[in-house]
Amino acid sequence: MTGTLTIVGLGPGPEGWVTPAATEAVDHADMILGYAPYVNRLTPKAGQVFEATDNREELARAERALHLAGSGRRVALVSGGDPGVFAMAAAVYEAVEKNPASAEKIDIRVEPGVTAMLAAAARIGAPLGHDFCAISLSDNLKSWATIEKRLRLAAEADFVIALYNPASKARPQQIKQAFDLLAGVLPAETIVVFARAVGRADEEVDVTTLAHATEMPCDMRTLVMVGSRETRKVVAADGRAWVYTPRSERER
Amino acid sequence: MTGTLTIVGLGPGPEGWVTPAATEAVDHADMILGYAPYVNRLTPKAGQVFEATDNREELARAERALHLAGSGRRVALVSGGDPGVFAMAAAVYEAVEKNPASAEKIDIRVEPGVTAMLAAAARIGAPLGHDFCAISLSDNLKSWATIEKRLRLAAEADFVIALYNPASKARPQQIKQAFDLLAGVLPAETIVVFARAVGRADEEVDVTTLAHATEMPCDMRTLVMVGSRETRKVVAADGRAWVYTPRSERER
Repeated sequence: MTGTLTIVGLGPGPEGWVTPAATEAVDHADMILGYAPYVNRLTPKAGQVFEATDNREELARAERALHLAGSGRRVALVSGGDPGVFAMAAAVYEAVEKNPASAEKIDIRVEPGVTAMLAAAARIGAPLGHDFCAISLSDNLKSWATIEKRLRLAAEADFVIALYNPASKARPQQIKQAFDLLAGVLPAETIVVFARAVGRADEEVDVTTLAHATEMPCDMRTLVMVGSRETRKVVAADGRAWVYTPRSERER
Repeated sequence: MTGTLTIVGLGPGPEGWVTPAATEAVDHADMILGYAPYVNRLTPKAGQVFEATDNREELARAERALHLAGSGRRVALVSGGDPGVFAMAAAVYEAVEKNPASAEKIDIRVEPGVTAMLAAAARIGAPLGHDFCAISLSDNLKSWATIEKRLRLAAEADFVIALYNPASKARPQQIKQAFDLLAGVLPAETIVVFARAVGRADEEVDVTTLAHATEMPCDMRTLVMVGSRETRKVVAADGRAWVYTPRSERER
């Protein structure tokens, strides 16, 4: 092996959620590549080169990371959350598939991280306490018909549904379409959690029901969780409330 | 608030995967409760009391943790992986629901962690690179009929399927039933990953197809991932192979 490429998950934001193994991988790299907001979370050490790029260039960034590692560099390619969940790890293996020679002599590793839905769930209770799924609402790379089919089947299966990339400036309406579709399968009182910027100073976590979900603001920094039929609010004697999905199913 | 209860995720095993926030929560606790294998990963500090219990006592352990925190202790309730995924966080909120007064004056927090499927995925490539679901195969708390229904719908939705608790001594056959069911929906060449004891000295990760999945050994320490129709092997020019699920869907 001549170079190394480590695809590193930096977690949702705070340093307390960056694993020691991720920190070590970043510390040992001589080049750090990634989408600018993630690269900007790090402080360059002596001899390190930082290269921040735009969000829509995942495959080109993966190819460049392979190229640099192939020339003997120790490269860290950083993602927010976990790099294997709607992030850079898949882009790297896509680049390897396109050009199998590009991986030659490179030690490729993935360093896992805390993905957004785990942090969001932790903040509100335990909504992912039972079977769940994760769906990206971005239709850049798949058809909206596929997304609709998955939403419908996930609701029929009674999964808790974590929605990544629920909305962007280019597609503010799709999350509303998703809620409308889900409302055709799930009860109106199904719990919906909006977790925005979890772990950051402007963190905001709101709980509503499917009947009112389309009224809620939602952007690229929001993680949405739609409950299963079992997901419920639990209220302490002093009025504090959490959301959780029990480990067991009710008798029906 | 008089006491604190932090439900802490210790990650899949190695210290490099324990977040600094989880370590801090454990360091600041004066009592540490949990299933023995997780408690045993920690070293007691001066003044700390460790209380390890059996796996089948989640609700009783949650009630005891609330009771101790209610009496003013700083309690850490530890789980492997992420505490919100098939682990202790849901048991705590279940205990609060049963007895809302038991949460009174307790600061309850959840510290997220790297859940098993993220670590397993990282080891083999990026199998969770697209929409996926997580299903616990344990039928202690739900019916096998519910599990079968979810497996069938998940396969129809073309989710990558992460199977937690795939087998135990008491139910060695269910994972085989699950594979048989999935083989009725998915192609025989669908990729299946068996990731055992990821991050430990005896780690073993094997890749096979659905046609041969029932031949593979599988126990409580195994995390199984069944690919979607898009999940594939990618082989570098030098013969190394990984498994990944592309971010985009093929034209059909």
